[in-house]
Amino acid sequence: MLIGVLGAGQLGRMLALAGYPLGVRCIFLDPHAGAPAGQLAEQIVAPYEDASALEQLARADVVTYEFESVPEAAARQLAGRVPVRPSPEALSVAQDRLHEKTLCQTLGIPTAAFRGVSDERELEAAVTAIGLPAVLKTRRLGYDGKGQRILHQAADAVPAWRALGSVPAILERFVEFARELSLLAVRGTDGRIGYYPLIENQHKDGILRLSLAPAPRATAALQAEAEAMGKKLLDRLDYTGVLALELFETPAGLLANEIAPRVHNSGHFTIEGAVTSQFENHLRAVAGLPLGSTALIGHSAMINLVGDVPERAAVLAVEGAHLHLYGKPARAGRKLGHITFCGSDAVTRDAGVAKLEAILAASARG
Amino acid sequence: MLIGVLGAGQLGRMLALAGYPLGVRCIFLDPHAGAPAGQLAEQIVAPYEDASALEQLARADVVTYEFESVPEAAARQLAGRVPVRPSPEALSVAQDRLHEKTLCQTLGIPTAAFRGVSDERELEAAVTAIGLPAVLKTRRLGYDGKGQRILHQAADAVPAWRALGSVPAILERFVEFARELSLLAVRGTDGRIGYYPLIENQHKDGILRLSLAPAPRATAALQAEAEAMGKKLLDRLDYTGVLALELFETPAGLLANEIAPRVHNSGHFTIEGAVTSQFENHLRAVAGLPLGSTALIGHSAMINLVGDVPERAAVLAVEGAHLHLYGKPARAGRKLGHITFCGSDAVTRDAGVAKLEAILAASARG
Repeated sequence: MLIGVLGAGQLGRMLALAGYPLGVRCIFLDPHAGAPAGQLAEQIVAPYEDASALEQLARADVVTYEFESVPEAAARQLAGRVPVRPSPEALSVAQDRLHEKTLCQTLGIPTAAFRGVSDERELEAAVTAIGLPAVLKTRRLGYDGKGQRILHQAADAVPAWRALGSVPAILERFVEFARELSLLAVRGTDGRIGYYPLIENQHKDGILRLSLAPAPRATAALQAEAEAMGKKLLDRLDYTGVLALELFETPAGLLANEIAPRVHNSGHFTIEGAVTSQFENHLRAVAGLPLGSTALIGHSAMINLVGDVPERAAVLAVEGAHLHLYGKPARAGRKLGHITFCGSDAVTRDAGVAKLEAILAASARG
Repeated sequence: MLIGVLGAGQLGRMLALAGYPLGVRCIFLDPHAGAPAGQLAEQIVAPYEDASALEQLARADVVTYEFESVPEAAARQLAGRVPVRPSPEALSVAQDRLHEKTLCQTLGIPTAAFRGVSDERELEAAVTAIGLPAVLKTRRLGYDGKGQRILHQAADAVPAWRALGSVPAILERFVEFARELSLLAVRGTDGRIGYYPLIENQHKDGILRLSLAPAPRATAALQAEAEAMGKKLLDRLDYTGVLALELFETPAGLLANEIAPRVHNSGHFTIEGAVTSQFENHLRAVAGLPLGSTALIGHSAMINLVGDVPERAAVLAVEGAHLHLYGKPARAGRKLGHITFCGSDAVTRDAGVAKLEAILAASARG
C-alpha cells in the first residue's frame, strides 16, 4: 500500500514512521528539499502545482495531506485520478476561515460572532455589527498566530486591515475564553468515528507550547459537547482521516475556533500516550483499514521545542520523557521537535512537566 | 549522531525506526539488497568483510550489530577505527556455544552439563561423561533450532555428528525444562543496567511463536535470580547495549541456555508494551545517552508471523493489536512480521491472543 502525501514536514515524518510497521509506505510531494519526511521516505521535490509531480503522486493508492495550505487545485486534480482523503472539499473549507465559520453556523456549531470583510467599507460595518474588542484575521494562510490583529477601538480597524495586506478577512468578536481545548477525531471510510479525549492547549506568542491530555477537569458532559460538534462536521464533510477541532472553553460553553483537516500538533502525545497514535489512525482511515482504539494510556503532556533543542541527554534522563526531533535546522520560532511526558496520573505528569520546563529554561539561558 | 549497524534485517529496521525521533540516524551494512532496514534507511550492499564497505561504515559515530553471525574480523577491524558496542569480544563469545557456556561456568552461572566435541573420539567420551538424552549442537551459526540434533541412545551420536557436517560441536545434557524464559537487559556506557521483566517464550518447530510479558507466575525471586545471572555477564563483558539471555526454568532453578548480544525477538513487544522499547534503549546505550525506563505497560503478548501474513484488516480490527511487518517476501518458515497485543491484565491479554490465533489459523487454512 502506497500513500501519497502533500507536504513533507514533521507531520509527514511521523506519518511515515507510523506507516512502515503497517506495511504502508508514504511518498511525499513538497517543494523543500530535505524536508523532515523526505529524510526517511521518498520525496518528490517540486511545487505543489507541478503537473508531472502530481502525475507521479497519482500512482499512489490514495492521497492525503499533512499541510492544509496546499493549493486546492492540486488536490482536485489528484482527486480525478486517485482517491483523495479527506476530500478536497474538506481542505477547501479548512483553508478559508470564513467558509469554516459559515459551515459551523450552518451546522448549529457555536462560534464567536463573525463577519466577512472584503473592503474598508465592509470592515467598518463589521466593527459596528460585531462590537469591540474583536480580532481581524486573514481568511487564508494564517497559522501560529500569524495573519491576525486584535482591534480594541474603532480607529484600530483600518490600520490593522492594511497591515494584513488589505486581503479578504474575517472579523470575529474577541472571546474571553477560560482556555483552549482541542478535539481529535478520526473517521473511517465506513463512517465510524473515534474520538480522543479532549486536550488542553497552552500557547505563547501564538505558538502552541504545551498540551495536556486528558485535559484537566474535562467532564464527560464537556467531552460529549465537543464530540457532538465534531460529529456534525465529520458527517457533513463525509470526512475520512483525522480532523482536529480547536475549541474555546467559555462560561457559556464550547465555541469552535478552527478546523485542521489533518493530524495536529496537539495530538503528538498520542504516539506514546494513546493505544493508537493519531498518525497510525489517520493512515488506517485513509487506507480503508479498521480504526484503532483512541483510549489514552495514563496522563500525558506534550512540550513543543520551539527555536531551540535542549541537550538530548538532559531530556532523556527524565524518566517517562520521550524525545521527538524533526531533523530541521534551528531557527527562532520554528518547531524543531517535541517532548512527550507520560505519567500514571495528573500529579506525576505535572511534576514531569515542571522538570522538563526547568531543563528547557536552563538550555535557553545557556 | 550516525550509528553504523552490521546487518539490515527486521531488528535493524526497528532500530532505525526508533532512531529517527531521537535524532539518531542508522546506516546499515548487509549483503542483501532491499533488506528490511534498507527500505527505510541508508544501506551499504556488500559482504561484511568488504574493506571499502567497512571503511564507509567507520564514518559512523559508533558501530553496533543487529545480527550476531557477522564475521568477528569485521567487528575487530571496525573497532580499530570507531567505538564498536557491544565489544567484538561479546560478539565472539555469543557466536560460539562452547565459549558461551564456558564463560557461564567461569562466572558461576548454571547451565546444562556440557562438553566440547571436535572429533568422533571426543564425541564418544562426551556421551559417556554427559549421559543421555543429550543435544548435539554446532558451536557456530545455529539459530531457530537449526544445527542441532537430540541423541537418545549412544548409537545416535556419530550419525548426528555427521549430519551436522562433522564440525566443532558441543554436547549438552538434555534439560527437562518447565518453560523457556528470556531476560532482556540493557547496560549503558556508564555501567548502569536496566532489566525488563522476564518474558515467557513458546516455540514451534524450533521457531519462536509466542512471547508473554510479564511471564506468567514469574516471582520477584525468579526475576532476581535471572538479573544476577545477567549482571555477571554484562559486567564481565563490560557490555554496552541490549543483551538477551535465554533461560530454561527447571525445578532446580534457572539454567542459562543462550546469549544474544543484540535486541531480541522476544523483546519486540516492548515497542508498545514498555515505557522504552528495547530498540530505543539499545540506541540510547550505544550512543552513550541515559537509558530509558524498562517498566512494562500492562500485559503484552507478541505473536510471530511465520511464513504467512494474515489479512491486515482482520488483525487491526482486534482492539489492542499492533501490527509490525518487515517488508520481506513470504517464504515458508520465514519471520515476516509480528503482532503485539497489549491488555490491562493477563486475562485480557490471553483473550486477545486467542482471538489473534484464531485469525492466524483461519488465514493459514485459507
